[in-house]
Amino acid sequence: MQAIKQMKRFMEPQSVALVGVSRHTGEGAFNILENLLSYGYKGRIYPINPNVSEILGITTYSSVTEVPDNIDLAVIATPRHLVPHLVRECATKEIKAIVIVAQGFSDAIDEEGKQLQKEIDQIVRSNQTRIVGPNTFGTSNAFINFSSSFIRINMEKRPIGVICQTGVFFVGFSEVTLIGKGIDLGNACDINFADGLEYFEHDAEVNVIALHIEGMQDTERFINTARRVSRCKPVIALKTGRSEQAAMAAQSHTGSLTGAAEAWQAALRQSGVLQAADLQEFIDLIRTFSVLPPMKKSTIGVITITGGLGVAAIDACQGSRVRIDRLSLSTRKLLNDMSPSWIDMRNPVDIWPAMMVSQSAIDTLVKGLKVLLSDPQVGAVMFIAAAFDERWQAWLCQLLAELTMAHRDKPVTCCIYGPCANGTIKDLEQIARVVAFTTPERAIRALARLREYSSLTLEAPE
Amino acid sequence: MQAIKQMKRFMEPQSVALVGVSRHTGEGAFNILENLLSYGYKGRIYPINPNVSEILGITTYSSVTEVPDNIDLAVIATPRHLVPHLVRECATKEIKAIVIVAQGFSDAIDEEGKQLQKEIDQIVRSNQTRIVGPNTFGTSNAFINFSSSFIRINMEKRPIGVICQTGVFFVGFSEVTLIGKGIDLGNACDINFADGLEYFEHDAEVNVIALHIEGMQDTERFINTARRVSRCKPVIALKTGRSEQAAMAAQSHTGSLTGAAEAWQAALRQSGVLQAADLQEFIDLIRTFSVLPPMKKSTIGVITITGGLGVAAIDACQGSRVRIDRLSLSTRKLLNDMSPSWIDMRNPVDIWPAMMVSQSAIDTLVKGLKVLLSDPQVGAVMFIAAAFDERWQAWLCQLLAELTMAHRDKPVTCCIYGPCANGTIKDLEQIARVVAFTTPERAIRALARLREYSSLTLEAPE
Repeated sequence: MQAIKQMKRFMEPQSVALVGVSRHTGEGAFNILENLLSYGYKGRIYPINPNVSEILGITTYSSVTEVPDNIDLAVIATPRHLVPHLVRECATKEIKAIVIVAQGFSDAIDEEGKQLQKEIDQIVRSNQTRIVGPNTFGTSNAFINFSSSFIRINMEKRPIGVICQTGVFFVGFSEVTLIGKGIDLGNACDINFADGLEYFEHDAEVNVIALHIEGMQDTERFINTARRVSRCKPVIALKTGRSEQAAMAAQSHTGSLTGAAEAWQAALRQSGVLQAADLQEFIDLIRTFSVLPPMKKSTIGVITITGGLGVAAIDACQGSRVRIDRLSLSTRKLLNDMSPSWIDMRNPVDIWPAMMVSQSAIDTLVKGLKVLLSDPQVGAVMFIAAAFDERWQAWLCQLLAELTMAHRDKPVTCCIYGPCANGTIKDLEQIARVVAFTTPERAIRALARLREYSSLTLEAPE
Repeated sequence: MQAIKQMKRFMEPQSVALVGVSRHTGEGAFNILENLLSYGYKGRIYPINPNVSEILGITTYSSVTEVPDNIDLAVIATPRHLVPHLVRECATKEIKAIVIVAQGFSDAIDEEGKQLQKEIDQIVRSNQTRIVGPNTFGTSNAFINFSSSFIRINMEKRPIGVICQTGVFFVGFSEVTLIGKGIDLGNACDINFADGLEYFEHDAEVNVIALHIEGMQDTERFINTARRVSRCKPVIALKTGRSEQAAMAAQSHTGSLTGAAEAWQAALRQSGVLQAADLQEFIDLIRTFSVLPPMKKSTIGVITITGGLGVAAIDACQGSRVRIDRLSLSTRKLLNDMSPSWIDMRNPVDIWPAMMVSQSAIDTLVKGLKVLLSDPQVGAVMFIAAAFDERWQAWLCQLLAELTMAHRDKPVTCCIYGPCANGTIKDLEQIARVVAFTTPERAIRALARLREYSSLTLEAPE
């Protein structure tokens, strides 16, 4: 548990020294202190800058050694040549966790970069000090409003633990703010994927772990750790740097040795890690696993207001672990009773004709959703719906919130077309516990991986 | 040209009869007249309803035969059993174009549906009247503010011609309003894909044609027409209903016989039609081809503020027609002169270190973009950028608008991560002539297809 205690200094610091923070603030200044204050971090903050006495109203110190209190974490954001000296000072001050933001170490082409890295390695070896980086945004934790990122990021108290090698995942994406909690390993000269996995393994606030891997040194420890952790929490990985050329780019990005794509694929599979084919699937899986309950059966009950995308959804199931197949007889009877005589309701359930012949189209839709949710053959429900307008989207969110509350053990996804705002997709996720996608293929792909993980962990193959 | 004249009655009607339009208006009424008035259609409108004298201030007639003027197009939106009689009345009135909205014909499981379809077929055979549908939204044309859709849709004067078998494509998607111009063929009992292709072939307002195909009868005429049309305008197709089960669903959706997936793939390729693998690619290709100029060389010059997604972009090029490879020596020299000494600038160009050491990060970024755009080795430019905030997004849009204006013959795409609004993606497309994607894989996939089509049509393979 020593290792966890160490990781907590990075992830849950109660005091932080910002070494090399500038007096320049505002747009384009990338001021870590200014960002940190904007989040509302409640820990002690010690800006280190020998040239000024205060920044943004906070007293500065000329060196970490001058700070009278103990410091959990130091964030060093200076040009690279100053870094070894500053790391030494941190070690002297017995600071045990350091983020090195600067670039130009193992990611550099010159000798100086490699030499600087060696110096840091030596200091770390002879002390208890551990390092995240260099070439990193550092760490973020929405639960304590902390981030060492020099770019101001959005965080949300979501149960997502991200371990990555680029700040992209701290910045997030149009449909989702990933952080949660995050560690940007950067060049990963010391703290690595296995360290991050062990921390999130024991972190009650995190239930999904997401890895962006360019490459790593100690694959054996990683695989052993991942195998253990993935049994209790889903671990999702995006492995980049697959081609030789990409490997070269990764070398200059984070100094990583990427390794053969096939070897990685096999290693991740054996470790129980869910490998995403691309960035979109990575995001989709993180959203899916952080929101939806396990999927206990392979059949997706699809209800749609358009037959067209229902057909596309079936196409997407080909060769996957999920299917859009037979509903219970009682379900079909209930659905047929609602529909015009000329239609025989099957899965996918095209509910539009029933809506059109009913007294209340909306009541018919709600009834159809309830019937599918209650079908014991159905492992997950997917609703293919148009976005229409904002009022409808708000209604939809409220309706689905009520339905998922009444069926907590059944995963529900939406495929939304039409002019859908990203805000609606976020609301559906956070208020209604429904993961929404803009195409049926994305929804099916995500559910297939949810089913894959569920069947492994529930140990109840059909 | 008789056929084109016929199609114009559907696509550019100067007068339209709305047969069976209801007095019910407002939300949930799905009133075609109300929708049509909201778009600002300038043609003559004749609501047909024997039970009221006016709807929304417009005089109604009890039958099309009572309308004193000629009528280009009749839209019949009544229960199915009334349809044959109403089609007969339209034929009597010498209306040559009819949209049949109702469902329950060849898409039905009962005998009555098939019988009703037969009756309609007989009337059509003995008259010059042509039919779109049944089971359709009909036609839409943003250029004359016309749509027969009973769901209110958004239209934009975009050069996109859609021929589909579901109203989904009239409703559009979060990142794009597809219509343009659209024909929902529905069951396609008469007007079919070839008719639509011929119309768009000669339509100066359309430069990209998008097909959503479930199935069709006369594949030979389609293939011959598509082969001719695809030589002058890109034709993009999404073929759904690939598995046996999907084929069954398509049968009950639009009464279509879907055919074997492999046969379709071969037929589309031979016809010069670009087949999309899924709905996302379909949308991405329509956006790409409607906005970007041809891509004359296979090399994509990538400039990125994050090395991480640059690596992912290279991965995405594997096995595709595009590559992120060598830049001109002069370009590399210019980029290296801007950068710290420890970095050797390659494609993808990680511009962040250069931004951080420069006097003005923004000027450095702009210079980097200009250098790439000017490189004669580069066939297209992709900018991987964070969305940051709304002000930055507005600035980015303005910057890219200026740059694409100065380099009109070079396709430019963006890969945007972070909290990006759909409005920004639309602005980039319409103001800056830049197609933006939320992942590098989507951008690369779209550019690879643009290169594929460009190399065929420019007849200048490298």
